[in-house]
Amino acid sequence: MTYTLVLLRHGESEWNAKNLFTGWVDVALSEKGVEEAKRGGTLMTDAGVLPDVVHTSLLRRAITTANLALDAADRHWIPVRRHWRLNERHYGALQGKDKKQTLAEFGEEQFMLWRRSYDVPPPQIELGSEFSQDADPRYADAPVVRTECLKDVLERALPYWDSDIVPDLQSGKTVLVAAHGNSLRAIIKYLDDIDDETIAGLNVPTGIPLLYELDEETLKPVTKGGRYLDPDAAAEAIKAVANQGR
Amino acid sequence: MTYTLVLLRHGESEWNAKNLFTGWVDVALSEKGVEEAKRGGTLMTDAGVLPDVVHTSLLRRAITTANLALDAADRHWIPVRRHWRLNERHYGALQGKDKKQTLAEFGEEQFMLWRRSYDVPPPQIELGSEFSQDADPRYADAPVVRTECLKDVLERALPYWDSDIVPDLQSGKTVLVAAHGNSLRAIIKYLDDIDDETIAGLNVPTGIPLLYELDEETLKPVTKGGRYLDPDAAAEAIKAVANQGR
Repeated sequence: MTYTLVLLRHGESEWNAKNLFTGWVDVALSEKGVEEAKRGGTLMTDAGVLPDVVHTSLLRRAITTANLALDAADRHWIPVRRHWRLNERHYGALQGKDKKQTLAEFGEEQFMLWRRSYDVPPPQIELGSEFSQDADPRYADAPVVRTECLKDVLERALPYWDSDIVPDLQSGKTVLVAAHGNSLRAIIKYLDDIDDETIAGLNVPTGIPLLYELDEETLKPVTKGGRYLDPDAAAEAIKAVANQGR
Repeated sequence: MTYTLVLLRHGESEWNAKNLFTGWVDVALSEKGVEEAKRGGTLMTDAGVLPDVVHTSLLRRAITTANLALDAADRHWIPVRRHWRLNERHYGALQGKDKKQTLAEFGEEQFMLWRRSYDVPPPQIELGSEFSQDADPRYADAPVVRTECLKDVLERALPYWDSDIVPDLQSGKTVLVAAHGNSLRAIIKYLDDIDDETIAGLNVPTGIPLLYELDEETLKPVTKGGRYLDPDAAAEAIKAVANQGR
């Protein structure tokens, strides 16, 4: 027997479209993102992959993606769990900044270090500043986060994987996780045992469900990397993401 | 100290607009219903009423209403609970039938008895028929329901009130219940101690949050009837609902 996990990165957001660093800033989906989310649901229906429970971050772009995809798949009625531990990486002082401008200001090397290194976080955001979430009521029970590298994301996402996602998998439910580029990369790094360097080159396309069958003993994938429900579109999109900021 | 409860009836559905008996048939919101839901969220924001948790039925029109209202109120990230016990009244064999046609076919007296009597349910729906939900996976853990009167709705809604809504209230959370004309009438009948005849004349307007402050000892309203967040629009809408089917 295997367990079924579906990972879904939110559709394009208004700030993806504007090429700004987003992180924990709670922007909405763009019109394109809304269409991507609905299509994600149709892809699940077409593949006969029907989630029994959904886990989302506390950010609107993941929540709306889950809502729209599940509605399109006629699974809008399943139980919902949300947690800040599934949030996008906190982008620190870069939140709200233009990616191209940041590249020009700090140079290619520093820019790529912040974007892709495993353990170098951007500078901390100033508390109380426009794009900081330190006073946001949704994080009242969470530690104050001021910046994160991918390693930080993995370390705060895994406790939720163990405490909340694994029990749902073990009860035989098909589990959908609707989240973000970096929280999903963190989960994928853990599942597929990807090393700290290789993970830098891994991009998760938006709106295309990624299906994993997990071994019931080890809770690791039967097939490394899983399977995108639209492999051609996924390959196309992965190329496009890799070119962001250029 | 008091507890805060907000009741929200879903916006107009595609079948409200077509004047069909809906019940447990899972129809979507109409465009007007989508706007009503968003406005419900704005009314909550303007009144400073911020839900900490939302309870919905398993039906798309209540779920979408909750999603849109909470998004408009910037509370999309709160915990979500869903249960069939908050569903609309099952309309039995009338589900999918035109209200005007039913009125013409069965006459005013029978029609009003099915619509408004407290304890006379419509005829049972045929299992396996087009508008029956007996094979719907979302009700796998629920008893098979084939028709209901308002009394039935109250009897299946109250256990959920006691087991799931009351504990949220008692933990000090502002609780939003996004549901249906009849499941909300059942809750209101219970809260306001309305007798079996008077409840027939009570209509809940769509999309206008109804705010109750509940006494912490008795869990009954401090002010009977609560307070609609847009009282003028509520009064208008109540008149319109009363004229449905004419």
